[in-house]
Amino acid sequence: MNFQSMPKTELERLYAELLERYRRFRDLKLNLNMARGKPGSNQLELSVQMLDLVNSSAEMVSETGEDCRNYGGPLGLPEMRRLMAAMMEVPEGNVIIGGNSSLNMMFDTVACGMTHGFSGCAPWGGQKHLKFLCPSPGYDRHFAVTEYFGFELVAVPMTPEGPDMDVVEELVQDSTVKGIWCVPKYQNPTGITFSDEVVRRFAGLKPAAKDFRIFWDNAYCVHDLTEEPDCLLSLWKECEHKGNRNLAFFFASTSKITFPGAGIAAMAAGDDDFKVLKNRYSFQTIGPDKLNQLRHVRFLKNLDGVRAHMARHRALLVPKFETVLNKLNEELSGEGIASWTKPNGGYFISVDVMNGCAKRVVELCGQAGVKLTGAGATYPYGKDPNDCNIRVAPTYPPVQELRQAVDLFCLCVRLAAAEKLLNP
Amino acid sequence: MNFQSMPKTELERLYAELLERYRRFRDLKLNLNMARGKPGSNQLELSVQMLDLVNSSAEMVSETGEDCRNYGGPLGLPEMRRLMAAMMEVPEGNVIIGGNSSLNMMFDTVACGMTHGFSGCAPWGGQKHLKFLCPSPGYDRHFAVTEYFGFELVAVPMTPEGPDMDVVEELVQDSTVKGIWCVPKYQNPTGITFSDEVVRRFAGLKPAAKDFRIFWDNAYCVHDLTEEPDCLLSLWKECEHKGNRNLAFFFASTSKITFPGAGIAAMAAGDDDFKVLKNRYSFQTIGPDKLNQLRHVRFLKNLDGVRAHMARHRALLVPKFETVLNKLNEELSGEGIASWTKPNGGYFISVDVMNGCAKRVVELCGQAGVKLTGAGATYPYGKDPNDCNIRVAPTYPPVQELRQAVDLFCLCVRLAAAEKLLNP
Repeated sequence: MNFQSMPKTELERLYAELLERYRRFRDLKLNLNMARGKPGSNQLELSVQMLDLVNSSAEMVSETGEDCRNYGGPLGLPEMRRLMAAMMEVPEGNVIIGGNSSLNMMFDTVACGMTHGFSGCAPWGGQKHLKFLCPSPGYDRHFAVTEYFGFELVAVPMTPEGPDMDVVEELVQDSTVKGIWCVPKYQNPTGITFSDEVVRRFAGLKPAAKDFRIFWDNAYCVHDLTEEPDCLLSLWKECEHKGNRNLAFFFASTSKITFPGAGIAAMAAGDDDFKVLKNRYSFQTIGPDKLNQLRHVRFLKNLDGVRAHMARHRALLVPKFETVLNKLNEELSGEGIASWTKPNGGYFISVDVMNGCAKRVVELCGQAGVKLTGAGATYPYGKDPNDCNIRVAPTYPPVQELRQAVDLFCLCVRLAAAEKLLNP
Repeated sequence: MNFQSMPKTELERLYAELLERYRRFRDLKLNLNMARGKPGSNQLELSVQMLDLVNSSAEMVSETGEDCRNYGGPLGLPEMRRLMAAMMEVPEGNVIIGGNSSLNMMFDTVACGMTHGFSGCAPWGGQKHLKFLCPSPGYDRHFAVTEYFGFELVAVPMTPEGPDMDVVEELVQDSTVKGIWCVPKYQNPTGITFSDEVVRRFAGLKPAAKDFRIFWDNAYCVHDLTEEPDCLLSLWKECEHKGNRNLAFFFASTSKITFPGAGIAAMAAGDDDFKVLKNRYSFQTIGPDKLNQLRHVRFLKNLDGVRAHMARHRALLVPKFETVLNKLNEELSGEGIASWTKPNGGYFISVDVMNGCAKRVVELCGQAGVKLTGAGATYPYGKDPNDCNIRVAPTYPPVQELRQAVDLFCLCVRLAAAEKLLNP
C-alpha cells in the first residue's frame, strides 16, 4: 500500500510495527557491508590460476624478446597494449599501460593538465576558477580527484540515456569548464549505459575551452550481467568521424576482471594528447610491472578470453543482483517511497528513496550493522540536493548475508519514510 | 708513459698504432652495452623463486587478515612497510609503499609540491623562477624530473665526501632554491658514500625556503660490493636530533634487489609531509599491488634476509667490477689521461677522461659497437662543463663481453687523448 496516501493512524501502527522489527534486527548484531564495489571472494578465486603462469620455471620474455624482469618498456608490453586496446576499442598505438590503478592514471592525467596543460593551452594550475562537470549521481572518487585539484564541481543531471546533454552542451560554452567525468557503460551507480545519441553528442561537443576533455572511464566495459548486454557506441570512432581526435581520455582496468589488488590499468588518448602523456611518462616512471602484464596476457589471452572469463564472473554475480532486486520488488513495490535501477551490468544498483530520507536510511542501516555507501556520496561535495540517492553494492557479501542485509535495508527505507511522513 | 709529456713524433706513432687497433675492433662488429645500470640475467635468476611464493595454492592474506587480491591498503601492507622501514632506517609509520618505480614516487612528490606545496607554503607552481640543486656528476633521471617541472637546475660539485656542503649551505640561503637531489650511498655515478659530516651538515641545513626539501634517494642502501661496506649515517636520525623533521623525503626500492621490472618502491617523510602525501595518495590511487608486496615479504622476510640475498648479488657483481677496474688499471694508469672511482658498492664506475674528450670517447666506442651512457648525461641539461665525465655501468654484460667492451673503452680513451693532444 502506498505510504503517501495512508491514513495517519494506520501509518502510526505500521511505524510501531517496523520499529519493533528494526529492534529485533539490531539485536542480531549484524556486521555486513554493501558499501563498496568489491568483488566477492568467489570471484577472486576465478583468477588465481593466473598466478601460476609466471613462475620460476616459466619463460619471462615478451613477444618482442624483452626480459620482463629487467628495466624497459615505459608504455607497457606490446601484447598487453593490444589486449587493452581490444577491450577499450581504441588503436593499440594510443594505449599506455599503468600500474594497478586506473584511478591513478586519471589523477595523473588531471595532474598533467594542472602543470603542463593540453592542446598548447596554459596549464590549468595557472588558470583561475576552473570547473569540472560531474554527472550525478556518479562516482565519488572521480569527483574527489578534481576537487583535490581545486576545480569547482558542477553537477549535471543523469537521465536514463546518460548525462543530460542539453545541459552539457550549454555548460561547455563556458571556457572555464575543462572536463567531464563519465562512466559510459553500466554507470556507477545507476547501471545505465549511455545511448548512441548521447555518445554522438559527446563526440560532437564544441567546447569553448580547447583544453576541455572527456574523462571516459569505461570501468565496466566487459562487465555484463545478462545474455543480451548493453551495447556502447565507440566514442573513439565517433570522435574520429567528427575530427575531434583529442577530445577524450579513455580508461579501463582489469581490477574487476582479475584482481582489484593486483590488476592492470590502461588509458588511451588521441595522437596529440598521447604525445604529451608519453613525454610525461618518460620522466615519471621506469615503467609499469611487466611480470604482472605477462601474467595477465597469458591468462586472458585476448578479447574472447576476457569475455569467457567475464561469463564466469556473471554466473556468480547474477544471483546477488537477483537477491537484491527481488527483495526490493517484494518489499518496496507500490509503496511510493522508493524506485531503483535494474542494470544489465556493472557493480551497483541505484536506489532513490523518499526525498530527505537517504541519510536517515544509511544511518538506520549502520546502527543495525549494515554498512552502506554514505548518502550523498554520489553527488559533488557529497551533497545530494534531494537527499534521496543510495548506492547499493551487492557484489561483496555472500548471497546468504546479502539477503539479510537487503531485508534490513528495505525495512529501513520503510521506517525512514514512515518517520518522515509522521514528522513532516 | 704519460701522454702529456710525450714527444710529438712518439705520440703520432702511438696514435697511428691505436687507430690501427681501433679499426680492427670495428671490424669485429661488436654490439655491447655499458650504458645502463641494469642487473645482469644471472642476478635476475636469484629472485625467480619469489614468483612461486604467491601462487594458486598459497594463502593470499596479509598479517592483518586482509585478502591481498581485493581492494584496500593505499599505503601498503604493514609487513611490507616494516621491511622497507628497516632497509631505509626510518619508522614504519612514516613509510608509503608505491608501485614498481621509486622514480615515480619522486616525480609524484615534486608534482605534489607543484600543485599543493609543502609546509603550508604556496604551491611551487605558483612561485616563480625556482631552482633545484643537482650534485654533479649525478643521476640524469633525477635532474630530468625537476627540469620537466620547470626548475632551473643548479650544479653542485661532488667531492669524495659528497656534495660540496659549503656550496650547498650558501645556495640554500636563496629562497627560490627548493630542493636537492641526493644518492647518498654509492652515489650514481661516482660510487662514493656521503661522509658523516656531510650527512650532519645536511640535517642541520637552515634553508631560506620553508618548503626546501632534500630528496634522499637511497637506491643502493644495501648494494655492497665488499666485506667491509661503506656506512651511511642515518639522515632521518640526524634530522630528528636537529629538530628538522620535515627536511627530507626518503626513497628506496627493490628494483636492484629483486626485479627492476616488477619490484616494490617505497618512500618516507616526516610527520607533516607524510600527512600531506597520505592525503594526496587517498585521492590518487586505490593502492599499490598487494600480491607483489606479499611475494616480496615472503621471499626477503626481513633485513637479514635482504642482506643474505644481496651477498648473492655481490658474488656475481664483484668479478664484473674487477674486470673493469683491473683493465682500467692495466691500460690507463700513469698515462695522465684518465682517473676513476673504485666504489665499494652500487652500480657504477665514474671515469674522468682528459678534458674535452668525453664526447669523443663515447662516440668512438659507439661507432665500434659499444654503447656507453651519453657524455654529459651526469650533469644538469646534459652539459658537462669540462666534457670529461663518463659513467661506466659494468653490471649488465657477461664478464666475457665486458672484457671486450672495456678493452675498446680504454683504447678509445687513449685514442681520443692522442687525437686531442695532436690537434689542440
